[in-house]
Amino acid sequence: MTTDASVFASRREKLNSLLPQQGLDAVALNAGPMQTYFTDLHFHLMERPVVVFLMPNQFPIIVLPEFEKGKTEGIKDLTVVTYGEDPALWQESFSRAAAELIAPPKRIGVEGLRMRVMELRYLEGALPGAKFEQAEPLIAQLRMHKDEAEIDAMQKAVEIAEAALEATVTKVKIGMTEREISGILIQNLYTRGCDPELPFLPIIAAGANSANPHATVSDRKVQKGDLLLFDWGANVGGYFSDLTRTFAVGEIDEELKRIYEIVKLANQAGRD
Amino acid sequence: MTTDASVFASRREKLNSLLPQQGLDAVALNAGPMQTYFTDLHFHLMERPVVVFLMPNQFPIIVLPEFEKGKTEGIKDLTVVTYGEDPALWQESFSRAAAELIAPPKRIGVEGLRMRVMELRYLEGALPGAKFEQAEPLIAQLRMHKDEAEIDAMQKAVEIAEAALEATVTKVKIGMTEREISGILIQNLYTRGCDPELPFLPIIAAGANSANPHATVSDRKVQKGDLLLFDWGANVGGYFSDLTRTFAVGEIDEELKRIYEIVKLANQAGRD
Repeated sequence: MTTDASVFASRREKLNSLLPQQGLDAVALNAGPMQTYFTDLHFHLMERPVVVFLMPNQFPIIVLPEFEKGKTEGIKDLTVVTYGEDPALWQESFSRAAAELIAPPKRIGVEGLRMRVMELRYLEGALPGAKFEQAEPLIAQLRMHKDEAEIDAMQKAVEIAEAALEATVTKVKIGMTEREISGILIQNLYTRGCDPELPFLPIIAAGANSANPHATVSDRKVQKGDLLLFDWGANVGGYFSDLTRTFAVGEIDEELKRIYEIVKLANQAGRD
Repeated sequence: MTTDASVFASRREKLNSLLPQQGLDAVALNAGPMQTYFTDLHFHLMERPVVVFLMPNQFPIIVLPEFEKGKTEGIKDLTVVTYGEDPALWQESFSRAAAELIAPPKRIGVEGLRMRVMELRYLEGALPGAKFEQAEPLIAQLRMHKDEAEIDAMQKAVEIAEAALEATVTKVKIGMTEREISGILIQNLYTRGCDPELPFLPIIAAGANSANPHATVSDRKVQKGDLLLFDWGANVGGYFSDLTRTFAVGEIDEELKRIYEIVKLANQAGRD
């Protein structure tokens, strides 16, 4: 997905305008979709922290490893603070980044599902006395309304997921394991343009496993008479799809047929 | 990897014996390899928290979603606390789990790279006044020595990664994108028994991208004369391999050949 640079600035403007009503002075974001949403930066979680500070009346500030600096080229209006390979010096870089903030924020929004304790500790060290609060209500409010490019990305994430499933189902054979099918599905997702970081690990669940709402992929082999469940999604520029479909493998018995009809209705109702 | 149940108890014994020298009273672990190491439980990170408390002189305590309870069946000596679908009630379950601890711990070790702010906040709510410290030094000390089953798993993680690469390289064609190759590699990893949660997203970097130490997979097509770099690994029961190999696509020019020789030496020296 390509988005005009002005879009990111206007998203930050909107964020800034909503900060006061959540009682927040700033937001600190870990690598992931929200960083991309506000800055067009594309990082995924790794053992080295990549954090962006957003605060009104100034450009975003990013702390990242020196060797990743190349990825910030071409991003306009960004203050870049890097650190080297010695973790003993990372705190100092976070403090240097925080010192770039035009006023020390007292309440900072963070994403509870994305920010790890590692990054939180560096932030706490850099901003002693500051409180780190939930950014989710603010973010949910911001992201409730999608622009055309976002809707396109969401649509594409569904199309890729559906096309990948179609291509996968035709290759399923009796005796294949859930794990093997999962590999085929992921390859089909990537071939069709899904971003490397999947929304979640696909669940392929055959037979009894398909009754487990959040089964993990196992080495169970697909057998005749199984129900075969797929719970998977695609990622397009940080926009995720999340689908579930269940198939019957050959003829299934009468009781399973009844269950299958119920599951089909649930599928149509769009359960996740 | 199957491990005798007594192994987990003896690992916990060892953990308990090392807690005092790190000044810790307990450890709280998020879903992931360390949970598996101490309890034989297999959870991966999701939007719902799954946390295990470990403390001397009592069985491990786990907090998890009601619908995941089935996964704890067959795990001996485990105290199970569940929560329902309403997040407003999750804090109460964490508090209930903490109340099961035989004495309120003052200093609790957590993994900074694995524990998220979400789980930390529930833990802080459940154990007011407790300090959450780095569990990493303790864990590193514990895991430095591997038993036979662990060494087997590590060896297998390397073998699977190597076999998957071999099968992938023979399928690479001029004009394929990095993303497509990544899909083929992942399928080959899974087919050979790699666990669904990869150690990290494989990096496939062609041409100029191969000079970027942590490139992300792009839609660049493989061309004649490219260097083609793979940075990938496999997961066997929470034991990760991490390999890097670089290939020449057809004939490469003299300067690249010199670079290639250097990279080959670096590969042999086992850079990550």
